[in-house]
Amino acid sequence: MTILIKSVMVNGKIQDIFLEDGVVCEISDECIKIADRVIYGQNKAALPSFINGHTHAAMALFRGYADDMPLKSWLEEKIWPLEKKLTEEDVYWGTKLACLEMIKNGITVFNDMYWQWKATAMAVKEMGIRGFLSAVFIDMFDQNKSAEEIDLNVRLFEVSKQFQPAVTFTFGPHALYTVSRESLEWIRDFSHAENILIHMHLSETEDEIHFVKEKYGLSPTEFLHSIGILSDRFIGCHGCFLDKNDCSILKRNGAKLVHVPVSNLKLAVGRIFPYALAKEYGIPFCFGTDGCASNNDLDLIETVKFAALLAKFSTHNPTMMPAKEAFNHATKTAAAIFGMGEWEIKVGASPDIILVNLNCPEMTPDFDLYSNLVYASKGSIVDTVICMGKVIMENRTVPGEEEILRTTSKIAKSLANR
Amino acid sequence: MTILIKSVMVNGKIQDIFLEDGVVCEISDECIKIADRVIYGQNKAALPSFINGHTHAAMALFRGYADDMPLKSWLEEKIWPLEKKLTEEDVYWGTKLACLEMIKNGITVFNDMYWQWKATAMAVKEMGIRGFLSAVFIDMFDQNKSAEEIDLNVRLFEVSKQFQPAVTFTFGPHALYTVSRESLEWIRDFSHAENILIHMHLSETEDEIHFVKEKYGLSPTEFLHSIGILSDRFIGCHGCFLDKNDCSILKRNGAKLVHVPVSNLKLAVGRIFPYALAKEYGIPFCFGTDGCASNNDLDLIETVKFAALLAKFSTHNPTMMPAKEAFNHATKTAAAIFGMGEWEIKVGASPDIILVNLNCPEMTPDFDLYSNLVYASKGSIVDTVICMGKVIMENRTVPGEEEILRTTSKIAKSLANR
Repeated sequence: MTILIKSVMVNGKIQDIFLEDGVVCEISDECIKIADRVIYGQNKAALPSFINGHTHAAMALFRGYADDMPLKSWLEEKIWPLEKKLTEEDVYWGTKLACLEMIKNGITVFNDMYWQWKATAMAVKEMGIRGFLSAVFIDMFDQNKSAEEIDLNVRLFEVSKQFQPAVTFTFGPHALYTVSRESLEWIRDFSHAENILIHMHLSETEDEIHFVKEKYGLSPTEFLHSIGILSDRFIGCHGCFLDKNDCSILKRNGAKLVHVPVSNLKLAVGRIFPYALAKEYGIPFCFGTDGCASNNDLDLIETVKFAALLAKFSTHNPTMMPAKEAFNHATKTAAAIFGMGEWEIKVGASPDIILVNLNCPEMTPDFDLYSNLVYASKGSIVDTVICMGKVIMENRTVPGEEEILRTTSKIAKSLANR
Repeated sequence: MTILIKSVMVNGKIQDIFLEDGVVCEISDECIKIADRVIYGQNKAALPSFINGHTHAAMALFRGYADDMPLKSWLEEKIWPLEKKLTEEDVYWGTKLACLEMIKNGITVFNDMYWQWKATAMAVKEMGIRGFLSAVFIDMFDQNKSAEEIDLNVRLFEVSKQFQPAVTFTFGPHALYTVSRESLEWIRDFSHAENILIHMHLSETEDEIHFVKEKYGLSPTEFLHSIGILSDRFIGCHGCFLDKNDCSILKRNGAKLVHVPVSNLKLAVGRIFPYALAKEYGIPFCFGTDGCASNNDLDLIETVKFAALLAKFSTHNPTMMPAKEAFNHATKTAAAIFGMGEWEIKVGASPDIILVNLNCPEMTPDFDLYSNLVYASKGSIVDTVICMGKVIMENRTVPGEEEILRTTSKIAKSLANR
């Protein structure tokens, strides 16, 4: 499959881009190759797509179901009872809704942790985007439950092979207050043997910090280090309560972080991702939206704006996390974290590509594309999305979107009344 | 002019709405009146429009020109030199760009403070929205400059009558570090005599607090109170550094506030609007975007999300500023602050009205319209805008937008090189 994008703004100039099976083969003033598909890029800019570093996709079904509540009753009275009712079919459609929203916001890769792994994988594959998918691994320190989870994960790892390359299996040990040391040690070994990423909530809340301190006498990061699970395959999400010592440990082990600012503010966890420390220690990090029960959208441009502004505010320094740097965390650093190669539009690279609309108020005037993108735009600026060499959205239209909206509306209603 | 909106979601039900010259005359299951214009509201919800409590509209021309800089060099090296070059024509077009963006984001009323008052007023009137417009009143404690500003403001107050009802003249004493006591006393008296609103930056930065303390031995609010300028005509913007005593004074005097969270974060002023105090003292407040040099967009839905999330985070309480309350601050409380009557869609009221698209991922599922609007949507959710009884946007199209984008792009480029 070849795609020719004509006369698009790319790397600061109006040029043509020629793609073959997702690989950028030519960028030139005028490409004369014949392509299977031609896209006219006038008044648009081509950029690498966004990567969502942390979400629970199918929770799109819960958008607006419960907000503005204390964390404990929100979880125990609202979210968990609803999650107990979720079938494979619900998760399949919920994930489709999330994928639709992500595509519309220029996200083509996401890192997920949720129930009904296979249903999620099917939805991702059908929607034509890429998912790093983990099952929620929770054993509540129960040996039998641990054995069950291990069995399930081994099976899913095998099953995942049929969903490649769209889907990559990862481990999703939920958090240190829900997963035993023994399970984590097993995950550590299997992850090492098979080169599998580990996706975990880390230092998100004060309760988590207290729990781990009480149980192990250590900070969450210190404990993870003590059992040897930290490596360049480890991706810790949230990280609000990380301190200098934690950051030094993470850096020494090559671990990565995901900054999830919108969820942290909405759930009022009490602290924000320590951007200045992550920067000081040089820990690679990207951004995540979290699930729609706690954000409530999947718009990474919005998340990037929150992150960039909070970096300035929390350090009393408006020069912190400038627009281009923020954009890079959301694209090329994210791609490096997930081992996806160069995520830039240059010959030989194979990033997914989005075209953003330049002919609109938020992009006018055009002093600085990255500033306009990060500080003035939203996901709705995205017009066209190319993922794995295929056009999956053009003119903001995704095939099948009506059916997804209709079906998920019905499922959500029935879930609440089931 | 009569408008019939058919089959739209309004106040929780699918109904018809009949408007005559902007007044809601009927809301019913089926309205059989004949109208000059019929709008089909299927898959849309009708809501009162948003009111932007603080901006500098024409600064839309400076979007992306200077970001991520220390406040002092940002102002002195970038913004002020550019502002010195601004002609009437520049401000006219810059304001048009801002109005276009605001209309696209469902804002039909804004409170402005900027140079070239008349050019702003012309643009507002032509775009068909409503502006509370003040000239920037700065005398730098110079008696001659004060006399000039007073002259100018008296003249503009007269001129403003030809722009009614779209435009309302207000006073815009910039801040306590730029305006003398004598000028403020004159504004106080003229405002009282002619019932004119006063729009002022208040307790935005630490430098301002120090300056006023040094000069007058008081907090900004205490000083304003000491000269008797606080009243229900006084609108203080930002208010980041207000304390209990200030809030008590503001409340006793009936003054109002505008919360401008995005700008405060981006410029890293060091504190956030004290939502808990404003609530405790019952001070009416609404939201403002600020100008595009410090936000960099004019999307009030985004601002409302920032405000609601910061309210939760700063109080460690996720129940603070729930979605519906946040929406109300941005609509009906704002309308009360500006003396615009009932800003709800009910018979006899005459709010401006927006129709928002319900058939999209961010509005699916539909558990809670206000949660979806505040936490999951952006301004791009707005499909149709009716202001002062006229349809000024339908299907996201505003007459003349191409010319505005083209002209302001050119002006911005020439400004930077002039």
